[in-house]
Amino acid sequence: MKKNGRNRDEMRPVRFQRGFTQNPAGSVLVEFGNTVVFCTVSVEDSVPPWMMNSGRGWLSAEYSMLPGSSHQRKQRTSRRGGVDGRSLEIGRLVGRSLRAVTNLKVVGQRTFWVDCDVIQADGGTRTAAITGGYVALHDAFTFCKKNGKLGDAWPLSSSVAAVSVGLVNGKPCLDLDYNLDSRAEVDMNIVMTGGGEFVEIQGTAERGTFGQSHLDEFLRLGRKGIEELTRLQRAALGIEEE
Amino acid sequence: MKKNGRNRDEMRPVRFQRGFTQNPAGSVLVEFGNTVVFCTVSVEDSVPPWMMNSGRGWLSAEYSMLPGSSHQRKQRTSRRGGVDGRSLEIGRLVGRSLRAVTNLKVVGQRTFWVDCDVIQADGGTRTAAITGGYVALHDAFTFCKKNGKLGDAWPLSSSVAAVSVGLVNGKPCLDLDYNLDSRAEVDMNIVMTGGGEFVEIQGTAERGTFGQSHLDEFLRLGRKGIEELTRLQRAALGIEEE
Amino acid sequence: MKKNGRNRDEMRPVRFQRGFTQNPAGSVLVEFGNTVVFCTVSVEDSVPPWMMNSGRGWLSAEYSMLPGSSHQRKQRTSRRGGVDGRSLEIGRLVGRSLRAVTNLKVVGQRTFWVDCDVIQADGGTRTAAITGGYVALHDAFTFCKKNGKLGDAWPLSSSVAAVSVGLVNGKPCLDLDYNLDSRAEVDMNIVMTGGGEFVEIQGTAERGTFGQSHLDEFLRLGRKGIEELTRLQRAALGIEEE
Amino acid sequence: MKKNGRNRDEMRPVRFQRGFTQNPAGSVLVEFGNTVVFCTVSVEDSVPPWMMNSGRGWLSAEYSMLPGSSHQRKQRTSRRGGVDGRSLEIGRLVGRSLRAVTNLKVVGQRTFWVDCDVIQADGGTRTAAITGGYVALHDAFTFCKKNGKLGDAWPLSSSVAAVSVGLVNGKPCLDLDYNLDSRAEVDMNIVMTGGGEFVEIQGTAERGTFGQSHLDEFLRLGRKGIEELTRLQRAALGIEEE
Amino acid sequence: MKKNGRNRDEMRPVRFQRGFTQNPAGSVLVEFGNTVVFCTVSVEDSVPPWMMNSGRGWLSAEYSMLPGSSHQRKQRTSRRGGVDGRSLEIGRLVGRSLRAVTNLKVVGQRTFWVDCDVIQADGGTRTAAITGGYVALHDAFTFCKKNGKLGDAWPLSSSVAAVSVGLVNGKPCLDLDYNLDSRAEVDMNIVMTGGGEFVEIQGTAERGTFGQSHLDEFLRLGRKGIEELTRLQRAALGIEEE
Amino acid sequence: MKKNGRNRDEMRPVRFQRGFTQNPAGSVLVEFGNTVVFCTVSVEDSVPPWMMNSGRGWLSAEYSMLPGSSHQRKQRTSRRGGVDGRSLEIGRLVGRSLRAVTNLKVVGQRTFWVDCDVIQADGGTRTAAITGGYVALHDAFTFCKKNGKLGDAWPLSSSVAAVSVGLVNGKPCLDLDYNLDSRAEVDMNIVMTGGGEFVEIQGTAERGTFGQSHLDEFLRLGRKGIEELTRLQRAALGIEEE
Repeated sequence: MKKNGRNRDEMRPVRFQRGFTQNPAGSVLVEFGNTVVFCTVSVEDSVPPWMMNSGRGWLSAEYSMLPGSSHQRKQRTSRRGGVDGRSLEIGRLVGRSLRAVTNLKVVGQRTFWVDCDVIQADGGTRTAAITGGYVALHDAFTFCKKNGKLGDAWPLSSSVAAVSVGLVNGKPCLDLDYNLDSRAEVDMNIVMTGGGEFVEIQGTAERGTFGQSHLDEFLRLGRKGIEELTRLQRAALGIEEE
Repeated sequence: MKKNGRNRDEMRPVRFQRGFTQNPAGSVLVEFGNTVVFCTVSVEDSVPPWMMNSGRGWLSAEYSMLPGSSHQRKQRTSRRGGVDGRSLEIGRLVGRSLRAVTNLKVVGQRTFWVDCDVIQADGGTRTAAITGGYVALHDAFTFCKKNGKLGDAWPLSSSVAAVSVGLVNGKPCLDLDYNLDSRAEVDMNIVMTGGGEFVEIQGTAERGTFGQSHLDEFLRLGRKGIEELTRLQRAALGIEEE
Repeated sequence: MKKNGRNRDEMRPVRFQRGFTQNPAGSVLVEFGNTVVFCTVSVEDSVPPWMMNSGRGWLSAEYSMLPGSSHQRKQRTSRRGGVDGRSLEIGRLVGRSLRAVTNLKVVGQRTFWVDCDVIQADGGTRTAAITGGYVALHDAFTFCKKNGKLGDAWPLSSSVAAVSVGLVNGKPCLDLDYNLDSRAEVDMNIVMTGGGEFVEIQGTAERGTFGQSHLDEFLRLGRKGIEELTRLQRAALGIEEE
Repeated sequence: MKKNGRNRDEMRPVRFQRGFTQNPAGSVLVEFGNTVVFCTVSVEDSVPPWMMNSGRGWLSAEYSMLPGSSHQRKQRTSRRGGVDGRSLEIGRLVGRSLRAVTNLKVVGQRTFWVDCDVIQADGGTRTAAITGGYVALHDAFTFCKKNGKLGDAWPLSSSVAAVSVGLVNGKPCLDLDYNLDSRAEVDMNIVMTGGGEFVEIQGTAERGTFGQSHLDEFLRLGRKGIEELTRLQRAALGIEEE
Repeated sequence: MKKNGRNRDEMRPVRFQRGFTQNPAGSVLVEFGNTVVFCTVSVEDSVPPWMMNSGRGWLSAEYSMLPGSSHQRKQRTSRRGGVDGRSLEIGRLVGRSLRAVTNLKVVGQRTFWVDCDVIQADGGTRTAAITGGYVALHDAFTFCKKNGKLGDAWPLSSSVAAVSVGLVNGKPCLDLDYNLDSRAEVDMNIVMTGGGEFVEIQGTAERGTFGQSHLDEFLRLGRKGIEELTRLQRAALGIEEE
Repeated sequence: MKKNGRNRDEMRPVRFQRGFTQNPAGSVLVEFGNTVVFCTVSVEDSVPPWMMNSGRGWLSAEYSMLPGSSHQRKQRTSRRGGVDGRSLEIGRLVGRSLRAVTNLKVVGQRTFWVDCDVIQADGGTRTAAITGGYVALHDAFTFCKKNGKLGDAWPLSSSVAAVSVGLVNGKPCLDLDYNLDSRAEVDMNIVMTGGGEFVEIQGTAERGTFGQSHLDEFLRLGRKGIEELTRLQRAALGIEEE
């Protein structure tokens, strides 16, 4: 069984362009097939009020789709009154995923803002945001390190990547594009470290439900996808296999 | 190993008060230990603009915490400018979970509003909201049925319930109260039907990560909790075991 | 002349459930017939910016109707853009009424938040909010006293209660439920202390106007209702008649 | 006893400038001493959605203070997020007061917008708004009548005016300016028709409380003030004593 | 060629009423024909957070149209959600224009709020706001000077005024009223100092475009208008010709 | 005299990437040196309510800076309450500029949304937005033409481009980057058609003022820049010199 020329356990082509822009500490354009997300990491020398005097830093992520990213124009949130549940939810997911591999005790009283803006949407924007956001965060920490802001410490305990799996026409599939996603009976996003540990699992059945055997197959496919993404992240960052 | 007197695979006492108020079609006060959520289902004889002329109905859920529900007062969203990511996210989860067992083709051009307002918060408010929301929805459909609004059809294909599991001090635990939740390394919410199928899985590791064996144990505990909640829902609704 | 079985100078059954929840310093569920309001008092160890360094405390009240409190669902303010004149107006009234019997000089640099959330609406929600809010405030001050936060002082100079009166079919009536309220030519809310002094009078004629003789009768009925509410407040709080 | 040169039962000088601007159907600049309010009435050939097909018209009022109206600049509501309880409350009061003397059945499917913008604030802005708003409304109805929009009907059943009374240093006073208002123990606003009937009474004791004898004196002073305002309204409109 | 009785290079009658109200430091009612704008300058003894410790002061302007200022009522911004691009844009223009002739280094750590509220709109409200705002600002600085707040310094380096020019029926015209403005092919606002230097030029062609020769004529007309406004400003302020 | 290696009458390198993404009808990444703006044109088959039944189409533009586009992160408007005067003002400018060369009578009842999102900010973002937006609009009209949506008509009467000029250290300069812009005494944006007609001129002196001779030089430089941009737009679009 094939999906747009791919086998159902095959990822779309994935590409990272590091240093896509020059102003932020990290700036990565990530592509999962036709899905394109622009990830930047900006460093602010302060923390939110509720973290003052904690001696720790903070990492916050925001996600947004540009109006022209989809076939039908998406109205800007700021013109609609400011409540966009889906964007808030995804921003929170990206933040949790990256914090899971970051030691905030060693980054000082700083906030790392990870902004993920969708340039082109074709399914899997949140998984591309996490996967590309990690590469941008790695670059931002390298930048801080070079500028003497991190001392001897290195804040990342592992890499992190994310991939979607789903049930389409009753078959488990890896890395759903929009065409597959819109027809999927079950949609699951899996966030894992480069070491193969889970960070986050979110599986949803909007149409129908799913049983244990499908869940097992979702996890197997997800693990396969994460392994490939981890290799590509390392290659993009020029890190040798451990 | 014990948690506040419970075994780590034991649920807190769960109680449903049906017909807690008289105005909405469904009105249930649900308690998971000290967590108390007021769930109402209101019926509106119209659907959102984007569903007009679809011949189908809609179900939408909203979640909110009353200011006095927690030890430290929670400011009302309306006074803060209207953006509260967590509440939006939970409302969306409750809506998806209830829609998964509802056939919206048979409810007519109506919107079912499920409102879950937390009266007292002690962990697991979202799982109580889903579990109690289902009972209120069942009552609302029964009310509509009696009033001839559903014809011969019955919109619910199954029951649905939710429970949290988590990793506390390295041990998997069922149904986390606030004390456990605030110390948990992993927090997972599992939504399942009465027939044992998954509707939604959301597992998050804010501190550290988790492996496959922990995931397996989380799912086993979750399944046990859902089975008990399903029995209690049936008992509350006066439905005999199938 | 009767109104739903009551004489026109008779109150609906009134009930207070103290300690309805455990987290806030005061927590009272108050019923005026089918009207049910949940009143909590939360204590915050700070005051608004404009009161800093005044040596005084502050008391602020907020009022809201839960979406499912009425027959037709009431949309949440936070989803409508945040302006709800009626709720703001009632919250301000509750705050003024409770401040009138409170000595803010002796409560320290603290804010007492009184939250009145309508669980079920059947007319007179603002009078129930004030009357129940007083009982919750008494409990909150008792709690602070026990915790040594008030020293030798007692902040309440008197009790306070509120009741509605109105003109229905040309007849003055006490304590209007929704059925009476929606038909009333004149609607008046009277807030008085346990000692029989006025705190606030708000009388409105939306349909037609009213003369001095009707006003005199409104005040007589109101005084009668307040006396009964004062007795019930004392009984609920276990305070003996002075 | 005197207040800024006035006897305590004496009104400040009151002045109406009709036709202050040319665009709205009614446009009146009203002065109560140094308090200056600009009242306009605009006519819109539609009604709010909830009044469609009712065959009746609507009247809505809004109140606002210009930023430079007071000694300390008042921030614009639109820059603060749009919630200003006091302004909403006063706008609602003005609307109710004017609707009480208006027969909305005879004005057609139209909305009359009464806008009261405070040019200079020196106490009593809401009473000036109601009293001047009536004159502007009279002009607007005359304008509509001339343009054949009202047929044979005349929508006003009576005139309406408002005045404040209060307790200052233990003495009841009529028409409080800012100096008196800021020291008042009790503040009461009385809205009455030209025929001497009550439309609205709002009495508030922020400091202390008040008894029946003070209330009686407030009502006597209020009645005196309303009679004078009614004479001045008639004179301004060129209406002869009935 | 004539426009409502004026030659096409002729200004409408312009009038300044200084001291229109008493509370703000500067208060001017300015008229350009039927366009009436109320300009106040309020002084606040603080600066925005981003200017703290700069040793300089700040000047900020806000512009708004009263609901009844135009034939068709203009909804208040605060009721529409707070975004009104045109008003923000004009407020920013007024602020920039007045700052261009103000030495903020000598006014101390103060903010001068210039509020321009349109009482009656008949075209050219922004040019009247700048021209009248300057007179109010001059009065405010005189007031501060008298109160010893400015020491030996005088903050104004020159006067500033503004006028509109445009292309109507292919003919360049000075000072467009609403009738001309709504038909104009090109609309240009010119802000100049009393010394004949440019502060701001904003020329817009909504219908068609314009060439260099028209631009030259616009600038000639604008210069003529500014010279006249400068004379009138001096006369109003009682300043003799230099 | 040189500015970062350029002569003061020299443009930065300008580049257009057409078809940067595939979903919108027009999609152009435009660079003015280090300033990078992503311009998309989306087509919606409806018009705003106030244009219904006019037989004409509409064109609306929005401008926004991505959070990571500048050195210091720019907070998202939607998180700040939705008011960002500068972005609204620039969006309005872009819309007016593109409408000036578009015949909205021939595009049918459609709205063309031009979204300009700044990827990297280094001065001149609004001029890049207009210049790139024109290329994207040309592509969108070509797309509509191919799909038979425009019949025989072609909506563009001319090309349009924009460039900034300014006074830096007393010298007029063309095309200011951030370094020059932040030091400029005068900043002017000039929008012209390919045929050399003015569409919009906006010149502002924040520090000091400017005279006629400087204005003449600004216009000469601007005209030179526009001519170069026009040549580059034609080259990018593959249009031969007329």
